[in-house]
Amino acid sequence: MPNLHRIPFDLVEQTLTASLILLGFSPNRAAHCALLFADTTADGVYTHGVARFPRFVKMILNGEVHATAEPKVVAAFNAIERWDGQRGPGNLNAWAAMNRAIELSTQFGIGFVALANTNHWMRAGTYGRQAAQAGRIGICWSNTMPNMPFWGAADPVLGNNPLVIAVPRADGPVVLDMAMSQFSYGAIEAYKLRGEQLPVDGGFDIEGNLTRDPASIEASLRPLPIGYWKGSALSMLLDMVASMTSLGLATHQLSTDPLRESGLSQVFLAIHPQALGTQPHIDELANQIVASIHNARTIKPGAKLRYPGEKTIDIRKENLRLGLPIDKPLWQEILAL
Amino acid sequence: MPNLHRIPFDLVEQTLTASLILLGFSPNRAAHCALLFADTTADGVYTHGVARFPRFVKMILNGEVHATAEPKVVAAFNAIERWDGQRGPGNLNAWAAMNRAIELSTQFGIGFVALANTNHWMRAGTYGRQAAQAGRIGICWSNTMPNMPFWGAADPVLGNNPLVIAVPRADGPVVLDMAMSQFSYGAIEAYKLRGEQLPVDGGFDIEGNLTRDPASIEASLRPLPIGYWKGSALSMLLDMVASMTSLGLATHQLSTDPLRESGLSQVFLAIHPQALGTQPHIDELANQIVASIHNARTIKPGAKLRYPGEKTIDIRKENLRLGLPIDKPLWQEILAL
Repeated sequence: MPNLHRIPFDLVEQTLTASLILLGFSPNRAAHCALLFADTTADGVYTHGVARFPRFVKMILNGEVHATAEPKVVAAFNAIERWDGQRGPGNLNAWAAMNRAIELSTQFGIGFVALANTNHWMRAGTYGRQAAQAGRIGICWSNTMPNMPFWGAADPVLGNNPLVIAVPRADGPVVLDMAMSQFSYGAIEAYKLRGEQLPVDGGFDIEGNLTRDPASIEASLRPLPIGYWKGSALSMLLDMVASMTSLGLATHQLSTDPLRESGLSQVFLAIHPQALGTQPHIDELANQIVASIHNARTIKPGAKLRYPGEKTIDIRKENLRLGLPIDKPLWQEILAL
Repeated sequence: MPNLHRIPFDLVEQTLTASLILLGFSPNRAAHCALLFADTTADGVYTHGVARFPRFVKMILNGEVHATAEPKVVAAFNAIERWDGQRGPGNLNAWAAMNRAIELSTQFGIGFVALANTNHWMRAGTYGRQAAQAGRIGICWSNTMPNMPFWGAADPVLGNNPLVIAVPRADGPVVLDMAMSQFSYGAIEAYKLRGEQLPVDGGFDIEGNLTRDPASIEASLRPLPIGYWKGSALSMLLDMVASMTSLGLATHQLSTDPLRESGLSQVFLAIHPQALGTQPHIDELANQIVASIHNARTIKPGAKLRYPGEKTIDIRKENLRLGLPIDKPLWQEILAL
């Protein structure tokens, strides 16, 4: 891969930290924010890691992301809290909200934090992993700007609202991190640039026919919800719960300009079943379910079935050993920030 | 519809109640169980209402459903509880569990009940509506017997694990009730009997090709998860959370014989955001989101977009006015029970 640098993890982290300090972040918050970007790239989720950093900086400079704003609790009632993100950095806000949900789950068995007025949290799975790392089941989701039509609608009124469910497990958490669209616009563009069709239908063309052609979907702005009418409905409900609990903006109230996608609503749920005892039994069940997948007969003989999040383990090891793979132009851009 | 009776709601309810009393139910529990069956048919979810009653009775007679068993709490820690369904009637167990989650949410802002060792709950959406009726956001899901392959697997190791998210709303709750398979086996069979192809790909044929042909999917036992690899992952995580919190059986441990599908694991979550105040704002957000869907431009000019659960309102009115539509052979079978 001639166009890729392999940059040591620590150097990436230090470089981003230095940029963020220049932008007004306190040293601690800069370091944490940089770590979340670098971790995401280390884990192989390249679309939502260091590659997003230039856009993040642009949104600090255009005033959408308030570098020094910290989230604050607005209302609290036992196991549930409502927070205001104050338009601060989305990943730091989300981390703080899940951290509070984990604390509440220690006290009540379950904790729920609804966060309004925040920004893009970058990799959704980060906050599920955070909960699993603390031994909790983590569930969270975010609304997004309108980028997907309701089933039967011609224009985007739904977000692709990523949903995360993560369970702790000694040999590595199982982490679902999925958007409600079958393919992201980023993925659709990548297929188009490679001159390839999508592997399955990914949206509608301008006449309303299902298509695998990435350019046709870009032209219609009608990417396909997962499961057609089902993902459309799920997206709507995720938006309702996030905005109704946080009292934040709903998808249809958000800007469709990616550089102005601010004021998101998110929810963070942590469950602590071990509070009811029987940790060994819980661990055993997790391992049995994973084994039932690993041992399933495959369609392609010899293929290996992996649980959600499993690939991360090997990718992360390799990226920490060789350095994070970062496009040369991207790295130049970051150094110039 | 010459083969349909229209039976008054009360007569259906009384007929099922009488059957259940003969099978050992107490009068109160018989009446409640019968009401849940009749309500489901009244709401237009014909596959999971009265039409399921004969199979339910068969599972009482074959010993899988214990007519007199009541669910009991096994462990409790503030806002979370673990329950044992004791193989009792699935709909009564689920109702009791959601009822307890609602009570916990009154006390803690959120309530979570994990229910092991239960049976098929019939219509999943019932328990979301129950929460919404009480002014709560309701989230629940169930695992099922293996009936869907993991992505890339040849045999079913996942369930189609229905997921419900319901939000309260003065003009009618918004209720998502969706299984993880694109089409149920019941729907696939109905297309086959009508000699029709599915409207979108619904599974694989025996050679592993995506197909809309219902008979090919019945032959392969490979129905398609919603969103392909995404629904496969979501199904796995729903199973993990349900079994790990309830300490009940996971999908891969359940019988694949529909008449022996017993010992399911389910979770019930109720959220009470009004505990943080601002009920009017919450209601306003719900109505705004619904309006954003109703007002969206449609692909087919003049088409009407409906939120999940909206059709129920008109269907129920008509069914209460005309009587519940029930197949004549089905009604004869029920009268003969």
